[in-house]
Amino acid sequence: MKNVLFMTAQDAETAFYEALEKADLDAMMAVWADDDDIVCVHPGGMRLSGVEQVREAWRQIFAGGTTLRVRLRHLRTAGGMTVAVHSVYEQIAVVGESQARHPVVATNIYMRTEQGWRMFAHHASPAPANPDGDTKRRKVLH
Amino acid sequence: MKNVLFMTAQDAETAFYEALEKADLDAMMAVWADDDDIVCVHPGGMRLSGVEQVREAWRQIFAGGTTLRVRLRHLRTAGGMTVAVHSVYEQIAVVGESQARHPVVATNIYMRTEQGWRMFAHHASPAPANPDGDTKRRKVLH
Repeated sequence: MKNVLFMTAQDAETAFYEALEKADLDAMMAVWADDDDIVCVHPGGMRLSGVEQVREAWRQIFAGGTTLRVRLRHLRTAGGMTVAVHSVYEQIAVVGESQARHPVVATNIYMRTEQGWRMFAHHASPAPANPDGDTKRRKVLH
Repeated sequence: MKNVLFMTAQDAETAFYEALEKADLDAMMAVWADDDDIVCVHPGGMRLSGVEQVREAWRQIFAGGTTLRVRLRHLRTAGGMTVAVHSVYEQIAVVGESQARHPVVATNIYMRTEQGWRMFAHHASPAPANPDGDTKRRKVLH
């Protein structure tokens, strides 16, 4: 598993969400750069940095036993030869639950490393219920 | 104002938070890359992309007339010659309000452009009240 080499940022992103759906910790961590500077923010959570913190949080999430299905929408990508920034809405469903969850907006940053493209940062946070039609934003300070 | 050239990502970040505190729209937009692919997520808000959407949201925020003071904590930076990823807690205070606000965690991405270093993405979301001591994360699906 540790020898996976992603040729593109999109390959890494596909593997990231597959690992999330499968709750596969090794597959998840194979997507991340092996770097003290990696950063991960789960919705409503604190910032995690470094491999140890990032892995431990995923371990706890996967240990919860919930099976998730993630549908991605409105992907926007930008970047260059060595870095890619993906912005995406995650529509998350919990297997066994009928109620839809609010969408999550995520910023995913990938970097080209000697081990191929790897995730460098994942920042996910709750988004308005209907990102398609939300023109009336609630008042935010910033 | 449009001729500002930031020599480092840190210079751009300093200007970003100064513009936020001053509610100076021109100064704010001078920090951002002039690019259709820029992305901005305010806490709890929808994703904004492109100069027009990003500018309009800042205009609305600044039009609210609230004066903010932002103290940055726990900055982590990473990146290379052409891109920088800054992860930071923003402790935001509203001038005239005695109550402290919950911190915000932000991922700021800067890119080196022909016009110097510019902000390419800003993703800000509510963080737990005490990021220093928060070991008991509330259960999150992801």
